[in-house]
Amino acid sequence: MSRKRKPLPKKAKRVFKGVIFEVWQWKQKMFDGSYQVFERLKRPDTCQVIPIVGDKILIQMQKQPDVVKAFPSLPGGRRDEGETPLKAAKRELLEETGYASNEWKLWRKQEPYSKLIWTVYTFIASNCRKIQKTKGDSGEKTKPKLITFNEFLELSDNPDFYEKELVGVLHRARYDKKFQKEFYKLLFG
Amino acid sequence: MSRKRKPLPKKAKRVFKGVIFEVWQWKQKMFDGSYQVFERLKRPDTCQVIPIVGDKILIQMQKQPDVVKAFPSLPGGRRDEGETPLKAAKRELLEETGYASNEWKLWRKQEPYSKLIWTVYTFIASNCRKIQKTKGDSGEKTKPKLITFNEFLELSDNPDFYEKELVGVLHRARYDKKFQKEFYKLLFG
Repeated sequence: MSRKRKPLPKKAKRVFKGVIFEVWQWKQKMFDGSYQVFERLKRPDTCQVIPIVGDKILIQMQKQPDVVKAFPSLPGGRRDEGETPLKAAKRELLEETGYASNEWKLWRKQEPYSKLIWTVYTFIASNCRKIQKTKGDSGEKTKPKLITFNEFLELSDNPDFYEKELVGVLHRARYDKKFQKEFYKLLFG
Repeated sequence: MSRKRKPLPKKAKRVFKGVIFEVWQWKQKMFDGSYQVFERLKRPDTCQVIPIVGDKILIQMQKQPDVVKAFPSLPGGRRDEGETPLKAAKRELLEETGYASNEWKLWRKQEPYSKLIWTVYTFIASNCRKIQKTKGDSGEKTKPKLITFNEFLELSDNPDFYEKELVGVLHRARYDKKFQKEFYKLLFG
């Protein structure tokens, strides 16, 4: 999903480190031999999960303190340092929903924004079952919601849907019937 | 295209200002009454143009010094301070391609990434005609390319296509025939 930027040059320097974001800069040689300061951001990777529960998909209605109203989103969150994407996905699914699965596949790996070093992993977790209660988190209020395959595809039209990186593929699954069948099979086997 | 985040709180402080990006932070009261430092980025808005030339769409094959190979993109660029989005779009189209138009419409206004204060305006410029030569820029090498409506829709599958914010709607136009007709009419009248 992303054109290939060259990796951050070795001479690049971190000029800012915040809570989520880092800013890196370097002097880039231009085509005419002149130099310009180029800037790129870095943030922790994120993992999102499509949890399959029977013939439904488990999403959440989420409230956040800096967002006006509840919005639909997939379970998921930031990958901790040293954690594999799969481990982060399992942890987030369990923490947020209380559900677990033994059947995981990595479906997509995207770098949604070209000036930002940030990878989004999308996992499909089949045959999920609830194994523990959820403990609320100070910063989020979430309510689980089981939706059908068609309702999932229709999220591509919902301006509040959190996972913007998936809008393209959900649109496609909605209108390209061949791809829709493949996608259904991928999710529900 | 974006769930409504509350505007940057008045107490937010700019903690970094780079070449493109600014970083802002504030103490956010959480649902349980505790506080956390929240972080948001700001960058200049960008304008992109779909230039209609006869029955074709004018895109560019663009090379950039930090990108591995040439990639397809729409004409466009950053809005200067104090410049309206439309003025920026006209300026960028002319600078990058030498083309101009008297028939402009704003088609989309998006905020593609929720942690980033950044608006992307997409304009349609009808009946474009070439009025001047282009002067190369030190940092980009672009070649104009006229493509058909179908080729334009197929860019939604091209991992190198620059305007990721348009992938969803191009996918839809490809597979939803009713929407495809409307979109064709919007572009070619």
